[in-house]
Amino acid sequence: MSRLHDPALRGFASDNYAGVHPQVLTALAEANDGHQVSYGEDVYTERLQQVVRAHFGSAATAYPVFNGTGANVVALQAVTRRWEAVVCTDTAHIHADEGGAPEKMAGLKLHTVPTPDGKLTPALVDSQAWGFGDEHRAQPGAVSLTQSTELGTLYTPAEVAALAEQAHERGMAVHLDGARISNAAASLDLPLRAFTTDAGVDVVSLGGTKNGLLAAEAVVVLEPDRVTGLTFLRKTSMQLASKMRFLSAQLVTLFEDDLWLRSARHANAMAQRLAAGVVDVPGVAITRPVQANAVFAVLPTEVTERLQKRFRFYTWNEHTGEVRWMCSFDTTEEDVDAFARAVAEEMAA
Amino acid sequence: MSRLHDPALRGFASDNYAGVHPQVLTALAEANDGHQVSYGEDVYTERLQQVVRAHFGSAATAYPVFNGTGANVVALQAVTRRWEAVVCTDTAHIHADEGGAPEKMAGLKLHTVPTPDGKLTPALVDSQAWGFGDEHRAQPGAVSLTQSTELGTLYTPAEVAALAEQAHERGMAVHLDGARISNAAASLDLPLRAFTTDAGVDVVSLGGTKNGLLAAEAVVVLEPDRVTGLTFLRKTSMQLASKMRFLSAQLVTLFEDDLWLRSARHANAMAQRLAAGVVDVPGVAITRPVQANAVFAVLPTEVTERLQKRFRFYTWNEHTGEVRWMCSFDTTEEDVDAFARAVAEEMAA
Amino acid sequence: MSRLHDPALRGFASDNYAGVHPQVLTALAEANDGHQVSYGEDVYTERLQQVVRAHFGSAATAYPVFNGTGANVVALQAVTRRWEAVVCTDTAHIHADEGGAPEKMAGLKLHTVPTPDGKLTPALVDSQAWGFGDEHRAQPGAVSLTQSTELGTLYTPAEVAALAEQAHERGMAVHLDGARISNAAASLDLPLRAFTTDAGVDVVSLGGTKNGLLAAEAVVVLEPDRVTGLTFLRKTSMQLASKMRFLSAQLVTLFEDDLWLRSARHANAMAQRLAAGVVDVPGVAITRPVQANAVFAVLPTEVTERLQKRFRFYTWNEHTGEVRWMCSFDTTEEDVDAFARAVAEEMAA
Amino acid sequence: MSRLHDPALRGFASDNYAGVHPQVLTALAEANDGHQVSYGEDVYTERLQQVVRAHFGSAATAYPVFNGTGANVVALQAVTRRWEAVVCTDTAHIHADEGGAPEKMAGLKLHTVPTPDGKLTPALVDSQAWGFGDEHRAQPGAVSLTQSTELGTLYTPAEVAALAEQAHERGMAVHLDGARISNAAASLDLPLRAFTTDAGVDVVSLGGTKNGLLAAEAVVVLEPDRVTGLTFLRKTSMQLASKMRFLSAQLVTLFEDDLWLRSARHANAMAQRLAAGVVDVPGVAITRPVQANAVFAVLPTEVTERLQKRFRFYTWNEHTGEVRWMCSFDTTEEDVDAFARAVAEEMAA
Repeated sequence: MSRLHDPALRGFASDNYAGVHPQVLTALAEANDGHQVSYGEDVYTERLQQVVRAHFGSAATAYPVFNGTGANVVALQAVTRRWEAVVCTDTAHIHADEGGAPEKMAGLKLHTVPTPDGKLTPALVDSQAWGFGDEHRAQPGAVSLTQSTELGTLYTPAEVAALAEQAHERGMAVHLDGARISNAAASLDLPLRAFTTDAGVDVVSLGGTKNGLLAAEAVVVLEPDRVTGLTFLRKTSMQLASKMRFLSAQLVTLFEDDLWLRSARHANAMAQRLAAGVVDVPGVAITRPVQANAVFAVLPTEVTERLQKRFRFYTWNEHTGEVRWMCSFDTTEEDVDAFARAVAEEMAA
Repeated sequence: MSRLHDPALRGFASDNYAGVHPQVLTALAEANDGHQVSYGEDVYTERLQQVVRAHFGSAATAYPVFNGTGANVVALQAVTRRWEAVVCTDTAHIHADEGGAPEKMAGLKLHTVPTPDGKLTPALVDSQAWGFGDEHRAQPGAVSLTQSTELGTLYTPAEVAALAEQAHERGMAVHLDGARISNAAASLDLPLRAFTTDAGVDVVSLGGTKNGLLAAEAVVVLEPDRVTGLTFLRKTSMQLASKMRFLSAQLVTLFEDDLWLRSARHANAMAQRLAAGVVDVPGVAITRPVQANAVFAVLPTEVTERLQKRFRFYTWNEHTGEVRWMCSFDTTEEDVDAFARAVAEEMAA
Repeated sequence: MSRLHDPALRGFASDNYAGVHPQVLTALAEANDGHQVSYGEDVYTERLQQVVRAHFGSAATAYPVFNGTGANVVALQAVTRRWEAVVCTDTAHIHADEGGAPEKMAGLKLHTVPTPDGKLTPALVDSQAWGFGDEHRAQPGAVSLTQSTELGTLYTPAEVAALAEQAHERGMAVHLDGARISNAAASLDLPLRAFTTDAGVDVVSLGGTKNGLLAAEAVVVLEPDRVTGLTFLRKTSMQLASKMRFLSAQLVTLFEDDLWLRSARHANAMAQRLAAGVVDVPGVAITRPVQANAVFAVLPTEVTERLQKRFRFYTWNEHTGEVRWMCSFDTTEEDVDAFARAVAEEMAA
Repeated sequence: MSRLHDPALRGFASDNYAGVHPQVLTALAEANDGHQVSYGEDVYTERLQQVVRAHFGSAATAYPVFNGTGANVVALQAVTRRWEAVVCTDTAHIHADEGGAPEKMAGLKLHTVPTPDGKLTPALVDSQAWGFGDEHRAQPGAVSLTQSTELGTLYTPAEVAALAEQAHERGMAVHLDGARISNAAASLDLPLRAFTTDAGVDVVSLGGTKNGLLAAEAVVVLEPDRVTGLTFLRKTSMQLASKMRFLSAQLVTLFEDDLWLRSARHANAMAQRLAAGVVDVPGVAITRPVQANAVFAVLPTEVTERLQKRFRFYTWNEHTGEVRWMCSFDTTEEDVDAFARAVAEEMAA
């Protein structure tokens, strides 16, 4: 198969428009050849456990899966009994972007909370975590937060710890959707465990694909007393890879050295550069704190339309005209500067 | 990440113990770099449609997914209404090897049939396809067959056509689990469409991983009038890849030229060579027709145990002592000959 | 078994605290003795079809079920494909009071809308009925409205028709949760079909239990082209009664003459009497239009607590102190007057 | 509503063709009038707990539900985790007669075993209870047996105890489908607890409807350590009655004195009388031990067809011509004798 696309074309639509980091391709080749036991009893998956424990502590176990929805739905099943529900924001990926997979595949009701910034607080959780023991209410069994959030914002370790303490007091488990966990850690300048293991999170969806992997995420169990059945749930949820060595090799590559951090820092820096490049353009308003690799802005619809002919990106909210610009590991300073110039040009046109 | 395993080690445990064909790694590199629209609107997924139509006819559409269980459960949902069930053999992968995913994720009851050779016949289907209109019986809505079967046997096009005709007459759809469809076509020396599209099959789980891909299968819709909702079912079933270009690139590589056929022919030939190499060893009995890339045999348990210390393979049936030896695209003549010698040695010991 | 309770005790907690109308007990005795074919092929279920068609038109078919959650979940499955979701208010019984049954049993995501009065409008529906064709969004497949609503308010036929027209234009079906449909018709002084069949509703959960039955509701299919699989869905949803004659006999008794209307009118009148009896009590505020058999009011928490020691009723909203007083077919004028006096007494205390 | 049917007509089709025992109608009237707290906090449900504990021991708790499929599916959910499966016979009601409800509603795979007599044995259970820890196999989490069985046979207490011991050793729970539990106890001449609580059963579906109730069964939890979530599972499974007093009153009536036993003994005796009445008719073969209220026999198809014009009953197996004759609490000696005469007449014709 020969190349069908222009490898020089990049945009700001999504971090999953980007491809694979070169080190990842190299790792796939290293993991190739010869036979390895399938379904996870291979040496790369074994190594992954060491890598994950270095980040999340010695009680952690990683279960590689294919994608983020898979990671989330498997993780949530592992912390809820048949009749339990999940508290999350109404911008949570599990609620807004997974086509109803949690409901359809796991029978999970989501008790959603509107938020100003994509972040749960103990007060917001309390607005849905009630009715314990009342059979007419789907029993709140877990809280799910996203770090960094779908709105590009961050939880501090103390904020996560407050949510975890509250959840545990009420008998609920805590899931962290870490599709962009690397961007969060990079921005906070903290190790991954600071706002997960050390803050009381029970299970993490560890993101890889949005940070330069081909297709690999992992459910990472931090508190085995609250998270059960992973082996079986991954299989029944159609997330068990036969040639798992290749998933694990990707994750090992990302997390054993500092590739995860370098890539995330770079993406975050590009977002900062982009924000800085457009913040002074008259008529452009940055709408949310730029804390990870996303920039949200409002600009006139006709400008957006002209810009979208030159660069690919998405309108986030059609009513307000808010757009989202995502940076990724492969975004270059030149990309950002060209885009910022284009914004200025189109605003001036 | 550096190599952690011995690339020279190969066994006969499973075709998914093998790694990735070198052409596939090359294709991943070709598909890399630059940005491509995620979730399937990329040029490699577009190309895949052409490739698949060349094999399965102009009505075919391919929906790449991550793994075989995913392909099967998505496909079966697409041919059954909420209250319908699936007729299959009791050795079918969907029944015996998927951890209950069809029941758990799709609510599908499986009406299973024991068989001598892993193959359905119209009479066997009739033993379960009854009770139409009777609400006490889970309504038979689809027939699922596997080609090549889990017992290494094959359906002829006429056999598939007879099943499809019967199914359609009774208002049922036909799903073909083609995890090893390439081995079947290679052995039958027929194009893929001969026993699928042309035989009346409605939807195929097109296998790739067992034939040298990293992790890529596809649901291929052949009869859109009987197979609906694929786009949505793939998403709700957690099988939608964000960076889909890399799944599609694998499948294009396998199926656009003759890599699928060469690899499958080779694996089949290795199975024939292995069967030929052990058939005359006193005490070894080949138990099933060797029609694809599997050899089933019975030998004394203590011999099996000694052999398993030298080569990795699985006992298929602990009661009878039957074992299964799988060949793959990377099995060499030397592998086979060494193994056949070992069988003879251990039998003689 | 001898009587264990005081038959003179009545309160305002719920219309399902009431017992069974005497005519219903008589009907059970009439339907008793001898053998009748089980599972619905009996003469009482046959008669029910005539009764239901007299109300809902000649295309209507009734499927008796045990309870309201059962009726709703069966009906919603019959109008949605595997991947579809339901638009409803956030006070809808299916969302707020069924323990997550729609999600757990039918995999249904509910796209909920906050409302001031428990009523959907086309604009409110539009706020959730979007994303058609986008696999990341659970596809809106049906609109569910409640008549009378959970807040005691009513839809006019024109309001229902506007919702139905909108829904059908967008390819969605319309479900009406009629747990208190009799109260609605009585209050509107309209036949049942005026705001169902004639307004474009596709399927109704026909309430009986809250209007004096022992335990009987029915899913009534009005538009067979949009509502399918009832026979099977009722069975798989565990709602198929073996001795169905006794469910059907209840429903026949309620709906063949005017028992449904007399009982509902009476309950509504009692609610009006209660509202009139307390509206002038200083410190008591009626919070919602009294259009059916519910009165919502706000009064001081300590008054509520004292009142609840004398009469059973529920606090609707702990934050605002709003309470709900329900009247039923067996509420007497004396009950109402005594309660209104008590409200005045406790407010004055 | 006036009577629409002939109360003198009775057949041998099913014990749920029969109506309601007169004492049950009386009990419904006793439980009527006045207000009672809904959803189970009423005095009849409270009394039911005492009644059930007298039969099953002081740890027992009863959860009334509407029907047998509801009881079974609720009970099985309460003893299995999300990924677990159930071992049962292939004639089990949950497998053969519930339309796939366990799979569809609870995601339960059933590992079925063919049997000669409808009874599990430890060896038969072992044929399916394997693969613990293997994610590719739906994990056996519970054993479900039926007493009396669907083939009219019985387990002795020792037989149940052996199954329970085995199940518990393997970490599985034991469910007993007691749709005809009264007939079993009557035939064994043992208290209900002898082959349930005392034999190690964890949860029972306590049958009422087939023994003269209108529509009432109960899930009875015997071992709370192995059976969890009943309150919530009953609600999410759409089996929570609002006016529960009427379900409980039926069950109290049946089980507080000896109505259950008298009715079951009578039905069993009628089956014995019927068997005795036809056993010597040339050409009629009784095919199974008559241990409860069912008689299975083989007779010529044309005779069956003529008989079915005179009396309603079902063909059990169309291939063998086996028929099933069920007796119920209201079957009279005259009914039996008339039927036996008819059999003889039609055989002689």
